[in-house]
Amino acid sequence: MILTITPNLAWDLTYTIDELRPGASHRVTDATGRAGGKGVNVARVLRQLGERSHVLALAGGTTGEACEQDLQRSGVPTTLVPITESTRQSIAVLPRRAGTGNDGGHPTLFNEAGPSVTWAEWETLVVTAVQLVTDYAVDAVTVSGSLPPGVGRSGLTALLDALPVPVLVDGSGPALLWAAEHGASLLKPNRAELAEATGTKDLDLGVARLFDSGAGSVVVTDGAAGLIAFEPPGGAVARAHLPRPISGNPTGAGDAALAALAATRNESWPARLRHAVAVSAAAVAAPVAGEVDPARVDRLTPTVVVQTP
Amino acid sequence: MILTITPNLAWDLTYTIDELRPGASHRVTDATGRAGGKGVNVARVLRQLGERSHVLALAGGTTGEACEQDLQRSGVPTTLVPITESTRQSIAVLPRRAGTGNDGGHPTLFNEAGPSVTWAEWETLVVTAVQLVTDYAVDAVTVSGSLPPGVGRSGLTALLDALPVPVLVDGSGPALLWAAEHGASLLKPNRAELAEATGTKDLDLGVARLFDSGAGSVVVTDGAAGLIAFEPPGGAVARAHLPRPISGNPTGAGDAALAALAATRNESWPARLRHAVAVSAAAVAAPVAGEVDPARVDRLTPTVVVQTP
Repeated sequence: MILTITPNLAWDLTYTIDELRPGASHRVTDATGRAGGKGVNVARVLRQLGERSHVLALAGGTTGEACEQDLQRSGVPTTLVPITESTRQSIAVLPRRAGTGNDGGHPTLFNEAGPSVTWAEWETLVVTAVQLVTDYAVDAVTVSGSLPPGVGRSGLTALLDALPVPVLVDGSGPALLWAAEHGASLLKPNRAELAEATGTKDLDLGVARLFDSGAGSVVVTDGAAGLIAFEPPGGAVARAHLPRPISGNPTGAGDAALAALAATRNESWPARLRHAVAVSAAAVAAPVAGEVDPARVDRLTPTVVVQTP
Repeated sequence: MILTITPNLAWDLTYTIDELRPGASHRVTDATGRAGGKGVNVARVLRQLGERSHVLALAGGTTGEACEQDLQRSGVPTTLVPITESTRQSIAVLPRRAGTGNDGGHPTLFNEAGPSVTWAEWETLVVTAVQLVTDYAVDAVTVSGSLPPGVGRSGLTALLDALPVPVLVDGSGPALLWAAEHGASLLKPNRAELAEATGTKDLDLGVARLFDSGAGSVVVTDGAAGLIAFEPPGGAVARAHLPRPISGNPTGAGDAALAALAATRNESWPARLRHAVAVSAAAVAAPVAGEVDPARVDRLTPTVVVQTP
């Protein structure tokens, strides 16, 4: 059982319109909403991989209720810690025909910052996480995505210090370094996040800085170039990529990779990366973040190119 | 007491961003939500004019709850008929600095279509409207804005036929003709809506068609050109406009005009139009739809130019 923690849950709306025209009024021809946030995607993917998962998040307001109802409908076991302010909403605006119009075929995104969380609310999240780990004999925890406004170093480290099982962290900015310092067993930045957090574009140097801070292991995702695993004191221990890049929607590919890395926590690095690349590619091929087709994962797995130094 | 009916309530969100770039990801620096829909604006303006008002609308889902909470906070007495589907959301995206960027200083709007309403839900709205008219000794009813998808001629006419007091209708498209046929005491289209509904750009001819259908009286709003009142069999009975157009946000100006026309239902046409122009202009000057400053209304009223043939 894997517990996925989403510090900054989101109510994700997707709006389909004809074409985006700045300053105009648009009729939304299709609107779909779902609970979002990286940790929710991780939990959804884990379930599709046949691994038990449980979502833990902070939720408030009517957007928090919408998330709760959606998670119930999806059958993802969930514990939501109530907060006073409202869960953020994020909106993706898509043109009706992909690749047309002035948006280059990309969704136009509007992301609210998220609610301010009180110390007491965050404390309740930490206590609840520890309780869930005990109650459900949780094997590993993932912590993904941004922290809510107002929750900084002390909040993240209180959570990591309290958890008695391995923690896999998908974060960015200073949170990546804080997680390294406080015993994260695995960090999964993408290449740009690693460079930003460590101040260097040199991959080995950046990873070495995370190990200096105390990281257990590091997997860097590099888009179509694949995944690279590192162990202390540094240097790649395995690399994996698809023979040809897959086309589709890259949103949620990193979440799928983290789910696969959590699911294969007791396997060898080559096996873990092979699985993570296949799952991540299946996520790119799926229309919606948090979805993977297990049959596609099975088809892709043997094609993954794995290299060890 | 005036009952304002909003068949297609909306949860109105305003997002402030730096600048709209199609295909990019935008951080929302400020997000504010409020219950919206034309009838809600009419009720808010009526209260600011010192007239008692009561909101009646259909509401469902978490967006419906958000509207309910906002109306409670605003102190606008409200009756919401529950529906299964969710109240629509509409989003206005504003650049941080008005007049900058590629949107010409206009908000970029995304309007959901609204929930499908069952016949039983609409029937409950009709029965509730009649009950409220009795319980609160309602003097007049306003019906404003679009009908929810699936509610057509039979729905609107069931409502109008059931109401035992004068009904003022702000509608567009065929609903304007249906309202005329079913005894609306006053129709308030803008000039473009009148042309679209009647199939002629000739003002007198268009109004004559509404009278042919059975309309009690008609007030056409024509932006900065002001308001024109008509009585059967046709021909303007009064016109009113500001000496100089006022700059600001025209959203909600028509709702303010309808509120003023409802509030002055027992006065002469010149007095009604004078008031409606002043209230409408005060709404343009206010930052948010549904707001008017009564002191500004008082200052503007004597400046309004009123003409009778």
